[in-house]
Amino acid sequence: MYHSQMLSSICMPLAVLLQPHQTSSNKWDTERRLGHCTNVPRNVNMESLQNDYLFPEICMRELEHNRKYPHAKLIRLGIGDTTHPIPPIITSAMAQHVYGLSTVQGYRGYGAEQGNMELRKAIAETFYNDLGVKGSEIFISDGAQCDISRLQMLMGCDVMMAVQDPSFPAYIDTGVIIGQAGKFMEETGKYQNIVYMNCNPENNFFPDLSNTPRTDIIFFCSPNNPTGNAASKQQLEQLVEFARANGSIIIYDSAYAAYITDDSPKSIFEIPGARQVAIEISSFSKFAGFTGVRLGWTVVPEELLYSNQYPVIKDFNRVVCTCFNGASSIAQAGGLACLSPEGYLALNGVIDTYRENAKIIFDTFASLGFKVYGGKNAPYIWVQFPGLRSWDVFAEILEKTHVITVPGRGFGPGGEEFIRISAFGDKNGVLEASKRLRNLFK
Amino acid sequence: MYHSQMLSSICMPLAVLLQPHQTSSNKWDTERRLGHCTNVPRNVNMESLQNDYLFPEICMRELEHNRKYPHAKLIRLGIGDTTHPIPPIITSAMAQHVYGLSTVQGYRGYGAEQGNMELRKAIAETFYNDLGVKGSEIFISDGAQCDISRLQMLMGCDVMMAVQDPSFPAYIDTGVIIGQAGKFMEETGKYQNIVYMNCNPENNFFPDLSNTPRTDIIFFCSPNNPTGNAASKQQLEQLVEFARANGSIIIYDSAYAAYITDDSPKSIFEIPGARQVAIEISSFSKFAGFTGVRLGWTVVPEELLYSNQYPVIKDFNRVVCTCFNGASSIAQAGGLACLSPEGYLALNGVIDTYRENAKIIFDTFASLGFKVYGGKNAPYIWVQFPGLRSWDVFAEILEKTHVITVPGRGFGPGGEEFIRISAFGDKNGVLEASKRLRNLFK
Repeated sequence: MYHSQMLSSICMPLAVLLQPHQTSSNKWDTERRLGHCTNVPRNVNMESLQNDYLFPEICMRELEHNRKYPHAKLIRLGIGDTTHPIPPIITSAMAQHVYGLSTVQGYRGYGAEQGNMELRKAIAETFYNDLGVKGSEIFISDGAQCDISRLQMLMGCDVMMAVQDPSFPAYIDTGVIIGQAGKFMEETGKYQNIVYMNCNPENNFFPDLSNTPRTDIIFFCSPNNPTGNAASKQQLEQLVEFARANGSIIIYDSAYAAYITDDSPKSIFEIPGARQVAIEISSFSKFAGFTGVRLGWTVVPEELLYSNQYPVIKDFNRVVCTCFNGASSIAQAGGLACLSPEGYLALNGVIDTYRENAKIIFDTFASLGFKVYGGKNAPYIWVQFPGLRSWDVFAEILEKTHVITVPGRGFGPGGEEFIRISAFGDKNGVLEASKRLRNLFK
Repeated sequence: MYHSQMLSSICMPLAVLLQPHQTSSNKWDTERRLGHCTNVPRNVNMESLQNDYLFPEICMRELEHNRKYPHAKLIRLGIGDTTHPIPPIITSAMAQHVYGLSTVQGYRGYGAEQGNMELRKAIAETFYNDLGVKGSEIFISDGAQCDISRLQMLMGCDVMMAVQDPSFPAYIDTGVIIGQAGKFMEETGKYQNIVYMNCNPENNFFPDLSNTPRTDIIFFCSPNNPTGNAASKQQLEQLVEFARANGSIIIYDSAYAAYITDDSPKSIFEIPGARQVAIEISSFSKFAGFTGVRLGWTVVPEELLYSNQYPVIKDFNRVVCTCFNGASSIAQAGGLACLSPEGYLALNGVIDTYRENAKIIFDTFASLGFKVYGGKNAPYIWVQFPGLRSWDVFAEILEKTHVITVPGRGFGPGGEEFIRISAFGDKNGVLEASKRLRNLFK
């Protein structure tokens, strides 16, 4: 699983795409001299983006390393990509649906843009039992990342947002693309119009809300990517109270809720009053190994209203109908099988194997004397390297152990000094990585 | 296939969603009086949208009709939704991929955001052979409609666009959502900042470019939805020349190219010079019956440059990586099977059956003395009812024949006086619809 020859297909096409732009500038120069150039201005928001998107960048680093050390046994604990096969009860259901598409009785064309109501109801029952979330408030998507972008289209460029720092980079990057972010300030590494809520060991990874200015939107991810920290019920109560007092909307990302092992809330809707201030995005990716199958959902409660009292759910429905056409019916059939008693049980077995990996990685760094966070309620381990630059740490680990991680700086300025290590991988690879890391840092 | 009891699942969940907003205003009134309201302003762009999205609206009309006539044998020739089963060679390939996901060897997590290179190359070879399109210029999507929205995010709110009138409503609606459209003018039914290029029988459904002002973006769909007209090579040469002279970018929608029976171009890239001025979006939906499977693609040539000489492909790649996470690997496996010699042959058999339907519908209206367009190069028939309002015609046909169509007005002011009839359906349903329409209009 961790041979360099077995590099995932994810990186290869990217290299092909990026090569002409990144390496052969002469080619573009020739185009510019000889070719036709349109009079269409480049989108200033696209210009505001500072770097390539983080995870393709990690892929590029992996490729470069692979070229340098073609015979090294690379272990990929970087991008949070599931590696364990999907339980057969779930793939059987998808295959059955697929075969049905070749029959008159089983063929299905367009489904509802919002998703199959059977699946929407099953999600409501499985994840929001007793929390008052209705199937009609759940919108099935092709993944949480896609819905982040649709939520930004919904909100538009005139709102101001806050994000945890560090945070999953799509929140900020889609905010930049839609035009919310304002100017990038080199000295701080931050965008002018975005509020960065620092989350670090000193504040137990929960922002100091007494110092946080009011924004329209608050992105909040728990269990957190990248820190691996799950907010407590008391902390989320503070967050909801803060949003209510400020008239803000929380966009709560619960994509890693299935990894919670203690009594931390798995949904923002466990908090009283959240239905009037929160949207929740979630995903089958990490819960069911559906990273390649593509399936997620977003909950928009009916009670959530704009300042003019217009229901947010009506506008989100319009965005979903106009900018999306529903998730693949095959993925949806798989999603339904995930929520059957047998499917759900089997998936918990898979999650347990990732949890074991997380413990191995956590213990490795802890025993080496590092300050280590996460891992208990999330498949990510967050390790501090005081005084060091995270891209340097990333590079040194890669160079000396052939282990891919993610530098914390990729998640925002608040991630400097940290690296994120993913627990997705097979156990042998994780054990081998542990051995190499112990050798490096002993 | 056309019994009212067999109403597609597409409409039911929608009804559930829309019901509380549309019918029980008291409920919202109560919320407004008693509940918490955020201070987040509603996106002014969302406010600018005039109606619900067209196709869910057609669904609502269908549902209302079904309530009124629960025993009527409804025939659905409205929404362009494929109805014919997918050839087994294609579903077998998808099922094989699905079963593989339960094995260590066959499991796949995230793929490249741009799609599998094997599929990208197969699309280049199948659809762009000898046209110089490379696999690396093809971005696999979950459908053309989703990429329309991503292209609007790419371009941003500061560009001005032109659309054919009538046109597929997603072009304008996504332009409104992103903030390009400006004020809606009641008197004309048009948005102030959008150029409407009228396409009607008088100009052979090709806009008078000598009267068309310069815009940054030109959406152009051929074979056209809704008119069913395919632009000739000469016309597309004029269009490309127009775009080159104005420094515009054409976003060319070729989703119905597989239906072309004459020598009309199937791709804008058949036109010399197009690579420097055009993006092409296309889809497996109507070509392979993948409306529910969800698979499409977008071609962005390397030579396409913004006014500052920056390559458009680099920004589109960034949007795809940030706002999308790749199409379902299962759908992509199916796409590859569609492009195998056997798959391609089988799909052409399916398309032939829809072509037969189109001929039946065309001949029905022609023999009744109507002016009828389309049908020859597209699965849509466009029928003129001079002096009548298209929603009235739609309603009368539905009321008296239980046949669902789409009113031309739904595609823009230029669609008034027309209705669009879809050739997607089983032959018996189409023959029955023909009989009823002959009775109504004889």
